[in-house]
Amino acid sequence: MKLARLGDPGHEVPVLLDDATAYDLRSVVPDLTGNHLSPDSLEKIRTAAQAGDLPVLENADDHRTGSPIAAAGSILCIGQNYAAHAAESGSAPPEVPILFFKAANTLTGPNDPVAIPRRATKTDWEVELGIVIGTRALYLDSPEQARAHIAGFVTADDLSERDFQLAESGGQWSKGKCAPDFSPLGPWLVTADEVDPTNLTLRSWVNGEPRQDSSTSDMIFGVDHIVWHLSQYLALDPGDVILTGTPRAWRSPAGSLT
Amino acid sequence: MKLARLGDPGHEVPVLLDDATAYDLRSVVPDLTGNHLSPDSLEKIRTAAQAGDLPVLENADDHRTGSPIAAAGSILCIGQNYAAHAAESGSAPPEVPILFFKAANTLTGPNDPVAIPRRATKTDWEVELGIVIGTRALYLDSPEQARAHIAGFVTADDLSERDFQLAESGGQWSKGKCAPDFSPLGPWLVTADEVDPTNLTLRSWVNGEPRQDSSTSDMIFGVDHIVWHLSQYLALDPGDVILTGTPRAWRSPAGSLT
Repeated sequence: MKLARLGDPGHEVPVLLDDATAYDLRSVVPDLTGNHLSPDSLEKIRTAAQAGDLPVLENADDHRTGSPIAAAGSILCIGQNYAAHAAESGSAPPEVPILFFKAANTLTGPNDPVAIPRRATKTDWEVELGIVIGTRALYLDSPEQARAHIAGFVTADDLSERDFQLAESGGQWSKGKCAPDFSPLGPWLVTADEVDPTNLTLRSWVNGEPRQDSSTSDMIFGVDHIVWHLSQYLALDPGDVILTGTPRAWRSPAGSLT
Repeated sequence: MKLARLGDPGHEVPVLLDDATAYDLRSVVPDLTGNHLSPDSLEKIRTAAQAGDLPVLENADDHRTGSPIAAAGSILCIGQNYAAHAAESGSAPPEVPILFFKAANTLTGPNDPVAIPRRATKTDWEVELGIVIGTRALYLDSPEQARAHIAGFVTADDLSERDFQLAESGGQWSKGKCAPDFSPLGPWLVTADEVDPTNLTLRSWVNGEPRQDSSTSDMIFGVDHIVWHLSQYLALDPGDVILTGTPRAWRSPAGSLT
């Protein structure tokens, strides 16, 4: 299933997208929040859709597309998870997944304008595969257990301001990752049952010009490994988002990847 | 005002503490969440208290003390903010506030048991002054504007697992900061109008033995500076918690501050 949220900020309607039609989910779930991303909730949506019980949201194309989840508990990010990008940024590939956080209030819709932060000179884009957690994951025994805890996948842009991240940070990256609206997600969440996250194309463009063109098959640590690994250190909860790192630049403008 | 939350996990009752009496706040605010920490909400509580409109919560002493806020949007932490502690950990004092995050789901009550994480060998305590944000702070013009955005202050224990933080992290600290229940807060929140955060005693004990005994006057970056500084990089929202760093160890057991 493709799930999305359509409408003005703060007034989005949760929908199921099927071909060109948006079905209003509000009779099943009030919104796509962490507590409504469990396997049970997703099954209720599926059952209602198959039964034809979901009303069509009229004029869906006229609505803004919001983030496909209403809020994130935490936004966890994996750094330097593509070998070529790690090399490009002057670092050896990491031996373990590197974890940092973005503030949870940075979520925004995929097409929304994002203000360049004040004083910024090196604002940068990073297309990433995002994991949305559906059920708590803590101390998983193996990566094979990871998939059952994933509600679905989203496309994300992990926006950064490189001077804030590196030159003004004392070495901890989050200061350059948290400006307002620095985490566009979407346009939709695809449920985990319909995604093979090991070989997804990831592309980005800036002002229509291609910037990144890679595949999740180039990840150093794959989706299941990441969820299993993080679960050894913390509890991943429903509504948590994991951004899995960005692939190498297709063409890197001067200075943008410092 | 001293605000607290009393009761079993997930069923806490928000209260105003006055001498030995706990007044039930539920007729004014459903819970102490970010959206109920604004100046307006706090003024409603104050007015109701002064009018004698708040019922007493009977047998308050029999209840568990929860975190004084129901949830955090983000938990932002300032690293190495006391010169002596920075020196102790082998680092020069930072030139700017160092920001890292704890996962928002690490909040717990001040007296709750906390499980040592699996595989942990260097779990560590850090008493800190916590700031709770009451209204959005973004691009403040000066530190003098900070105080108006603070709902109140809390005592916090910024628990860490040092091997997770340093040896298994790739250099980003959050991996050692986010185990379940690693952010005990409380027992209460004191509203900002009643606190001078520039000279508060901070003490900690482990199994009854003193470990830290310092003062917020030893902070490198004070409360107002921190809020102003962070607001240049991100939006601080109601319910966000800032842990302002830990003072030097009073007596440091071998290995605990590596």
